[in-house]
Amino acid sequence: MTALTTGLLDAPNTATLTISCADQRGIVAAVSQFLHNHGANIIHSDQHSTDPSGGTFFMRMEFYLKDLDVARNQFERAFQEVAAGPFGMAWQLNSASEPKKMALLVSRYDHCFLDLLWRKRRGELNVEIPLVISNHEDLRRDAEMFGLPFHVIPVTQENRAEAEAEQVRLMREAGADFAVLARYMQILSGDFLRGFGRPVINIHHSFLPAFVGANPYRAAFKRGVKLIGATSHYVTEELDAGPIIAQDVVPVTHRETPDTLMRLGRDVERQVLARAVKAHLEDRVLVHGNKTVVF
Amino acid sequence: MTALTTGLLDAPNTATLTISCADQRGIVAAVSQFLHNHGANIIHSDQHSTDPSGGTFFMRMEFYLKDLDVARNQFERAFQEVAAGPFGMAWQLNSASEPKKMALLVSRYDHCFLDLLWRKRRGELNVEIPLVISNHEDLRRDAEMFGLPFHVIPVTQENRAEAEAEQVRLMREAGADFAVLARYMQILSGDFLRGFGRPVINIHHSFLPAFVGANPYRAAFKRGVKLIGATSHYVTEELDAGPIIAQDVVPVTHRETPDTLMRLGRDVERQVLARAVKAHLEDRVLVHGNKTVVF
Amino acid sequence: MTALTTGLLDAPNTATLTISCADQRGIVAAVSQFLHNHGANIIHSDQHSTDPSGGTFFMRMEFYLKDLDVARNQFERAFQEVAAGPFGMAWQLNSASEPKKMALLVSRYDHCFLDLLWRKRRGELNVEIPLVISNHEDLRRDAEMFGLPFHVIPVTQENRAEAEAEQVRLMREAGADFAVLARYMQILSGDFLRGFGRPVINIHHSFLPAFVGANPYRAAFKRGVKLIGATSHYVTEELDAGPIIAQDVVPVTHRETPDTLMRLGRDVERQVLARAVKAHLEDRVLVHGNKTVVF
Amino acid sequence: MTALTTGLLDAPNTATLTISCADQRGIVAAVSQFLHNHGANIIHSDQHSTDPSGGTFFMRMEFYLKDLDVARNQFERAFQEVAAGPFGMAWQLNSASEPKKMALLVSRYDHCFLDLLWRKRRGELNVEIPLVISNHEDLRRDAEMFGLPFHVIPVTQENRAEAEAEQVRLMREAGADFAVLARYMQILSGDFLRGFGRPVINIHHSFLPAFVGANPYRAAFKRGVKLIGATSHYVTEELDAGPIIAQDVVPVTHRETPDTLMRLGRDVERQVLARAVKAHLEDRVLVHGNKTVVF
Repeated sequence: MTALTTGLLDAPNTATLTISCADQRGIVAAVSQFLHNHGANIIHSDQHSTDPSGGTFFMRMEFYLKDLDVARNQFERAFQEVAAGPFGMAWQLNSASEPKKMALLVSRYDHCFLDLLWRKRRGELNVEIPLVISNHEDLRRDAEMFGLPFHVIPVTQENRAEAEAEQVRLMREAGADFAVLARYMQILSGDFLRGFGRPVINIHHSFLPAFVGANPYRAAFKRGVKLIGATSHYVTEELDAGPIIAQDVVPVTHRETPDTLMRLGRDVERQVLARAVKAHLEDRVLVHGNKTVVF
Repeated sequence: MTALTTGLLDAPNTATLTISCADQRGIVAAVSQFLHNHGANIIHSDQHSTDPSGGTFFMRMEFYLKDLDVARNQFERAFQEVAAGPFGMAWQLNSASEPKKMALLVSRYDHCFLDLLWRKRRGELNVEIPLVISNHEDLRRDAEMFGLPFHVIPVTQENRAEAEAEQVRLMREAGADFAVLARYMQILSGDFLRGFGRPVINIHHSFLPAFVGANPYRAAFKRGVKLIGATSHYVTEELDAGPIIAQDVVPVTHRETPDTLMRLGRDVERQVLARAVKAHLEDRVLVHGNKTVVF
Repeated sequence: MTALTTGLLDAPNTATLTISCADQRGIVAAVSQFLHNHGANIIHSDQHSTDPSGGTFFMRMEFYLKDLDVARNQFERAFQEVAAGPFGMAWQLNSASEPKKMALLVSRYDHCFLDLLWRKRRGELNVEIPLVISNHEDLRRDAEMFGLPFHVIPVTQENRAEAEAEQVRLMREAGADFAVLARYMQILSGDFLRGFGRPVINIHHSFLPAFVGANPYRAAFKRGVKLIGATSHYVTEELDAGPIIAQDVVPVTHRETPDTLMRLGRDVERQVLARAVKAHLEDRVLVHGNKTVVF
Repeated sequence: MTALTTGLLDAPNTATLTISCADQRGIVAAVSQFLHNHGANIIHSDQHSTDPSGGTFFMRMEFYLKDLDVARNQFERAFQEVAAGPFGMAWQLNSASEPKKMALLVSRYDHCFLDLLWRKRRGELNVEIPLVISNHEDLRRDAEMFGLPFHVIPVTQENRAEAEAEQVRLMREAGADFAVLARYMQILSGDFLRGFGRPVINIHHSFLPAFVGANPYRAAFKRGVKLIGATSHYVTEELDAGPIIAQDVVPVTHRETPDTLMRLGRDVERQVLARAVKAHLEDRVLVHGNKTVVF
């Protein structure tokens, strides 16, 4: 079993700064000097270059800054000068005191859904959940038990476009920063992705790229694999082909049927999705083309 | 991550026969012949000898038998003749149609408790839960959400004996076949164990025998280990020393504090306890002195 | 890390009987009665049915029989009567005192090759290695260090058919019971497989069915997976599609390059191949269509 | 299975700078500014504070610097000014072009020994091995096969002090930077440790702190654990109590005997030792009291 990260991001007055730009000398020095000059104490720092001789450079710095909230605007304006200069950085600043807002899309399976709700309740995920959307009534009681607004939008072959438009409208209205498909069993269109315009995280029940598409447990059974897995990735228009955030597997034997594989898979699915969501919440995931850097 | 077993024991008309006796020739032949003569179809069979030249022999056979419920008494009487003869077998027959009754003892932590309830709801555990006992009110709402009777029996230094007596009385009255301490934070006395007289399963938050006793995550932090673990075992009078059913670990780094170790440990604890409970429910665990055979 | 099996098969006077036939009642009873009547003591027994209501039944019994070698012919004749009767069993008897003969095919990579040789030397693999065949000189010194005949048969686009014929001739002449491709970097033809007529085990450097074919580490790098794996399988005419015996994976991050993935992969490859070879040597692997039962 | 790190430290013109000091603001800025001013390109950077409000701060920076070897003395003098100032840093600079010298102490078991030699040959370990010392002749041929000087120093109850003195003399004469006990079955005295005065890495065949001392596999068997493990740590005078560098485990069942546990354990032992040695070689391990920071 792989452990979840254990960030300190729910501590007050901590923030993360994530940066990407063309690799060049002096980036670490410039950013750490800037943070030092503004009184920040760097708690964690991580960096990656896809190619030290001319690739893309990624950095994540987690720091403590007293009264950050008061000074945030000024801090951002000052940093923009560093970023915009010779380095041409794309950057983002996130403060632990303003947790991200996650829209949850579910269907009938409860395991990934309940695991995320429970982790939030336990304080493992620094997140707000402004709404849950489903195409079925099944999980209403669970959502309400956790005090969450639950919207049912049935989806059929015919009403798909309107259903998606309604989903997007609800999510944007609720101010969702990103969406998580917690075993939401529908394929989303490019219109949905563009309309929402923010990251969407999915959990696929196989170790991608093996067993793309529907019924991966049945496919795994037919191939006779000795491991089954789960993959969490950002959703793109191409099915099950977006940037992978986390994967894990569990050993299986000839004794399993498609049904028991599905049961075993649930434990991996919920672990992998929780890891991916936690990493996303803590700004540990930077996308680079069709791949991710996960700090 | 290690997978849970995936038994078929919730299928109707299946049963398990578990046997232990001094190792000798002819046991497998005699038992399988008996099952065949009574029309049973053996689905799984497993055996173990602690020492082929004169140790203890253990066997578990899972079989399908049409109309087993009707014929059960007769079947048992007939098998007693095989068992009592030269082999001197201790044996047990359990039918999937009569799930075991599990008493749950909890305190304030919800993770192991909820995980067991969810698994039961999903059909992963073929079990009845006649009652939940706690020394605190905290988990009442969760228990009631699942429709379970919730008894609060506060425990103090002074009233321990009476509190335990009351716990035993409630559990026996409810017909509990075994009890599970789902992070119940009290040490149980020999009187409790003898009074209940049935198996009690505990989850300890370390890879025993390392870090016996209180505060294992703090001890792990101080020792600087690179793995933390969890151990599920049958409770005996000696603290954390009973027969081990299941163990697992998760890698950790220097970045963890006792608090974050505790968070990470939850995921292992609930997995390991679920595995142990499932194995117990499916009659896969046979105790041999201070050790277990887990088929 | 998944453990290797630890069979007792190198103990004298132990043997395995493996059986497959259409599932029906009474098989276990008949076989265990037979073994009992012939004075055998069953040490391990395992069985599997692909479908209890009419599938294929597989069984493996490991037993101890004093003076088995003397009595073997008689034992086999007698068992043939049990097997040939109503059950129509396909069966095989193997004695620990007659280790299988393994032909090793290698190319330039030494890791899987050396790992098998070391395990044999340490007594972990009960096997004889009558010959090593390579298309390159590179590993001659290692083979000779272990006292193994080393044959170099260069393979080109033009001489493939003759080279394969020569390989088959050498392996059959040496009495090889099976062959292992320990990172032998050539694809074998159907003529080779039919000519040799015995099992051939390969190690593929990905978690099949992901990344079939050449350069799986490069493909894994391009897809940005967070796990790389290895798969050991029996070779069939269809590339990388034969029955899988063992698989494992290792977590990787964005920091890896195709080169470092290759390095990390070596550790998984040699573990997985060793597990598959050990299981094959101990008659734990029964093939069923394009899948395996691994007892 | 946990992966080894895959450092780039064998690339020419790369170096690592490791630092520890009391935690305070501005360290990262000062060091990265210094490296930038000297034309270095930071490839990796990692840091840790035991307590952001006043603990110990650790940092490791891996960087590329053209013509580092030429400029090294000057570079070190200049950095000493940064380090000695307000920060009071302890620091070390290591260049990939000057691999560390490792003394190997072995006894009769070959698995850890061969694994290290093979990894060196494959280019996985950037290390020189000036000598191998053993108390037995058994592994002479293997050492010589890899071209390594092999010294036999028999150790008895009586000659222990002189034997250790001779070991220390040989290691110091050979310029060893550290020593590795690759299943060297003798306990080393404080005199040895002080006499050598450099790090000594051991591999213990249990998941410490469980099963300290002799015969851990027998102790694991008696306790009936479901996991066995291995621990690599720096040696201190207190037996098996030094700072832990790496640990791993492998699942086991009731079927194992002390002998088969020992066999299974070999695979974990060699993996864990290799990980620890590789981390040490790449200056990833910083000792803090009785614990380690492993970057």
